[in-house]
Amino acid sequence: MAQHPDCKTHEEVMFYDTDAGGVVHNIAYLRFIEKTRTRLGAKLGLSLKRMSESGLYAVVIRTEIDYHKPALLGDHLTVHGWLEEAGKVRFCCAFEVTRDSDMAKLVTSRQELAMVQMPEGRPSRLPKELEQYRT
Amino acid sequence: MAQHPDCKTHEEVMFYDTDAGGVVHNIAYLRFIEKTRTRLGAKLGLSLKRMSESGLYAVVIRTEIDYHKPALLGDHLTVHGWLEEAGKVRFCCAFEVTRDSDMAKLVTSRQELAMVQMPEGRPSRLPKELEQYRT
Amino acid sequence: MAQHPDCKTHEEVMFYDTDAGGVVHNIAYLRFIEKTRTRLGAKLGLSLKRMSESGLYAVVIRTEIDYHKPALLGDHLTVHGWLEEAGKVRFCCAFEVTRDSDMAKLVTSRQELAMVQMPEGRPSRLPKELEQYRT
Amino acid sequence: MAQHPDCKTHEEVMFYDTDAGGVVHNIAYLRFIEKTRTRLGAKLGLSLKRMSESGLYAVVIRTEIDYHKPALLGDHLTVHGWLEEAGKVRFCCAFEVTRDSDMAKLVTSRQELAMVQMPEGRPSRLPKELEQYRT
Repeated sequence: MAQHPDCKTHEEVMFYDTDAGGVVHNIAYLRFIEKTRTRLGAKLGLSLKRMSESGLYAVVIRTEIDYHKPALLGDHLTVHGWLEEAGKVRFCCAFEVTRDSDMAKLVTSRQELAMVQMPEGRPSRLPKELEQYRT
Repeated sequence: MAQHPDCKTHEEVMFYDTDAGGVVHNIAYLRFIEKTRTRLGAKLGLSLKRMSESGLYAVVIRTEIDYHKPALLGDHLTVHGWLEEAGKVRFCCAFEVTRDSDMAKLVTSRQELAMVQMPEGRPSRLPKELEQYRT
Repeated sequence: MAQHPDCKTHEEVMFYDTDAGGVVHNIAYLRFIEKTRTRLGAKLGLSLKRMSESGLYAVVIRTEIDYHKPALLGDHLTVHGWLEEAGKVRFCCAFEVTRDSDMAKLVTSRQELAMVQMPEGRPSRLPKELEQYRT
Repeated sequence: MAQHPDCKTHEEVMFYDTDAGGVVHNIAYLRFIEKTRTRLGAKLGLSLKRMSESGLYAVVIRTEIDYHKPALLGDHLTVHGWLEEAGKVRFCCAFEVTRDSDMAKLVTSRQELAMVQMPEGRPSRLPKELEQYRT
């Protein structure tokens, strides 16, 4: 079996990521994770340009996210994402957000995605690049 | 000349609207204003449903926004928007955000919009409903 | 056992809620859900004003969200949220997002929350209002 | 007179930056610009960490933004920001967003900022690093 592809992206926490509790707002992490997932998708034949040309999109159908510790304004974060498993019509990615200064694990997440042909919204098979990771 | 149409919407400040400074983030007010502008647009023949069916969209081409006083978590706000002027291919809306508890004027804004036929991005004339407000 | 409190909020899908796939972006639903949760929290003694005065906040520690069908620009949505269960230091809310025009169930979600004394980040017991719902 | 400091940041347009018109939403550019402004601020003695320790924040009091051409999903953008002028209690930054592939100028913006001591919200003098740019 091929080794599962992964990807890391980096964030510096901006004011617009935080809330009046003084920490990063829970929704903001999902933007960080989307960036990692997008870069990971590009490695799997699912680049944004290719998806918008073909109309065949990877669509999030489920998100699970656990908040362990809060990130603060100005923190430097690393988001690590990887392909966890691939089936016939769905695949699953996992993510970990860590703070660079103390390596604290702040957030873990898991997302299921399906391929959908837009604009009809018709479910579609995974692209060939993903088939080799079929579990 | 016909009286210029206006619209009011109401917001309760949520955590996701605030930042670590303990106040509403400057960008969040533009979501509040977009909601008012959308409702105002519906009165001017520019409803979301009609725009997405025709592909003829009112597009923001300039925003000016002044921040006078900060809103806080849980504040109840009123956003008042009105058509300021209409030309051949552009129109202009103005907005005021006030806090309900003390009537403080927090934010004022002005946006210029143009009609654009998507997906080509071709500039287009204003709809008939707007012509009567031509200055 | 007391009947579990619930709350409904209403949304009209704005441009800023949608993405280039032509549908509501997956992250936007979490803003809708936060509004419902905030109103539900106010019924449970957790109003925003009271939380910001006491520094004792209900913090999301886990979100699960399933995307069944997409909402479109201009759709009118109802978000129904209710207290699912309450323990000693955590409680759990559930949510359903439906489209008003066809009553389609678009999104379901579940969030776990904990009480945290800020800025120290110290875990704290649930407020008295929630104790009667202890399972 | 010292040469005015500037800063460039880079963005890849994500789904969450776009809207159902198929282009980057007008509000999303203000997140791009905030990132550039934050990095520029760090060069001017206004780093996020220093601001959150001192409670002395640079606060946006006015934004002007012009939308010339739309950015699309997957576009690579460069945001160039620079200090335009500094007074006693206010300073002004300007920004240009260009697309890397064709160097098209998409968006221009100008923001006025003031120093505010939080949480009292008391106006404050600009930091020493900015005085040398006084016009």
